[in-house]
Amino acid sequence: MSAEFSTLSAFRDLLEAAPGADQTALGEAEARNGQLTKPPGALGRLEDMAIWYAGWRGTARPEITAPQVIVFAGNHGVTAQGISAFPAEVTEQMVLNFQHGGAAINQLSRAAGATLDVIALSLETPTADFTQGPAMQEDEVVAALNAGWNAVNPDADLLVVGEMGIGNTTSAAAIAHALYGGVAEDWVGRGTGVDDAGMVNKARVVREGVAAHGAGDALDILRCLGGRELAAMAGAIARARNLRIPVILDGFICSAAAATLAETVPGALDHVIAGHASAEAAHGAVLAKLGKEPVLRLNMRLGEASGAAVAINVLKSAVACHSGMATFAEAGVSDG
Amino acid sequence: MSAEFSTLSAFRDLLEAAPGADQTALGEAEARNGQLTKPPGALGRLEDMAIWYAGWRGTARPEITAPQVIVFAGNHGVTAQGISAFPAEVTEQMVLNFQHGGAAINQLSRAAGATLDVIALSLETPTADFTQGPAMQEDEVVAALNAGWNAVNPDADLLVVGEMGIGNTTSAAAIAHALYGGVAEDWVGRGTGVDDAGMVNKARVVREGVAAHGAGDALDILRCLGGRELAAMAGAIARARNLRIPVILDGFICSAAAATLAETVPGALDHVIAGHASAEAAHGAVLAKLGKEPVLRLNMRLGEASGAAVAINVLKSAVACHSGMATFAEAGVSDG
Repeated sequence: MSAEFSTLSAFRDLLEAAPGADQTALGEAEARNGQLTKPPGALGRLEDMAIWYAGWRGTARPEITAPQVIVFAGNHGVTAQGISAFPAEVTEQMVLNFQHGGAAINQLSRAAGATLDVIALSLETPTADFTQGPAMQEDEVVAALNAGWNAVNPDADLLVVGEMGIGNTTSAAAIAHALYGGVAEDWVGRGTGVDDAGMVNKARVVREGVAAHGAGDALDILRCLGGRELAAMAGAIARARNLRIPVILDGFICSAAAATLAETVPGALDHVIAGHASAEAAHGAVLAKLGKEPVLRLNMRLGEASGAAVAINVLKSAVACHSGMATFAEAGVSDG
Repeated sequence: MSAEFSTLSAFRDLLEAAPGADQTALGEAEARNGQLTKPPGALGRLEDMAIWYAGWRGTARPEITAPQVIVFAGNHGVTAQGISAFPAEVTEQMVLNFQHGGAAINQLSRAAGATLDVIALSLETPTADFTQGPAMQEDEVVAALNAGWNAVNPDADLLVVGEMGIGNTTSAAAIAHALYGGVAEDWVGRGTGVDDAGMVNKARVVREGVAAHGAGDALDILRCLGGRELAAMAGAIARARNLRIPVILDGFICSAAAATLAETVPGALDHVIAGHASAEAAHGAVLAKLGKEPVLRLNMRLGEASGAAVAINVLKSAVACHSGMATFAEAGVSDG
């Protein structure tokens, strides 16, 4: 597949040139919401979600008929530091599980009426151990961003991205620490289930990585501390903006990847809502930095787009009410 | 339709004779959950929901294919006290809106793949104004309980009940105050949108009703302070238990109606989860009394089963993961 951009600088230019929401559709959707047969505000968050969605789709009565879920997989050299409760070969085993339909995201995509694409990114070539050097060279991160960019179906009307990559909560913690400061321990969580000693080790790894390569701009931080699946999620979220396709964020790793866009261009995530609050410790802090209130709080911490996939049906419900309900005038109901 | 019971005492006997969950299925579902291709606990609340559902359906790998939503409508004599922001005729207007497919619950039922039944209960005969006398005589409340009992489809595999009835947040507040004590103001909220003066009036009405008729047992409280749609919701929830059909509670009014069952027979709501936390002020307090943690917090306050209907898809997602995922052994994935 051809590359849409060949440098991080060119990718940044695309972010800066991205379109905003359709203000006319937004205004029409707000007006319509006020006429529907319900007390004002009685559908709560559903009303906000539907209006936001209408603005990005450019129509006051949108439908959601073609959601796309993409799971990107990558391997991480930093697993050499012993930071995961599962061995690195699980990344590839889980990709096979996705392909055979046996993972959570297969069931959740079907339950949401969404297509599912699984994209394994050079699993045979893990990123470099970022305690030893940058995780990726520029050509590598640009290739991963392009993989994400090109994976988005232009005919989709909603995008969810997720990841699989043993070691990637460590990568996400390092990115968040580099972007937002604090100390390493603020950003480190149990991932798939490390013990207390594992947490101490993980914080050391994050601290060392950020000390070595955490001083650049946000896209350089993505290059030096990220993984291919994180860069691909960022690339897909950027492409969705380019196409005015709304996005639902998954958990900690997805949110850390998205944060590199928001830190590069303010407003780069205006087409994005947070699907859920993960149980991974630092997710709430990342969402607070992004100014995103999660739709769901179900104590999930699986990744692979699972929390966002559950949120698809909430957004579908919101849009179904907004576009399908009668107005007071249409229904002949007395408006309080 | 024939009456299943002809006195409140006979209804109580049915509640006491109701079956529990299938302990074998529950144990098998718990064991299965531990073998699925995810870190332990990584699906959070979805895991608990799926296991609970499996226990009530009596199978370790259940499916949800036939959810039923029932909206009961009733009119309230207490509207004579000026406690609602909308006029009483809106109850019937909204029933027509439900029948014509224009309300939120029509869209939400479709989005959840659920059937929708709308049952208007003697709208031409409002309950008595409970500041003047008991809202219902025993034959009236028994008829409403039977209407709910008989409305449940025995082939449904999930039940959601909701209501429409101008004035019914006042009725629900009176029931909660009578069941749980405190002062009237603890249980009164803005309903469809009363102002501050309306809130003072509503608290007065609740205080007077409870002072006059709040001293009986829980089913007598339902009779004296409830409405037909509240009694019908209670009857339907009881029938679902009888049939081992799990139930998702909607908001404040539905929860207050359900509370009369829990106060009558401890454990009467073990087959029930709370779908959402309503924005109606006292809903959280009722759920706390019931020991139920809501699945969703979307600031909804519409009633008509709307919040519970959104939660159907979350439960479907949970059950889809539980029953559809591969085990570590099946998928050849290394178990950390």
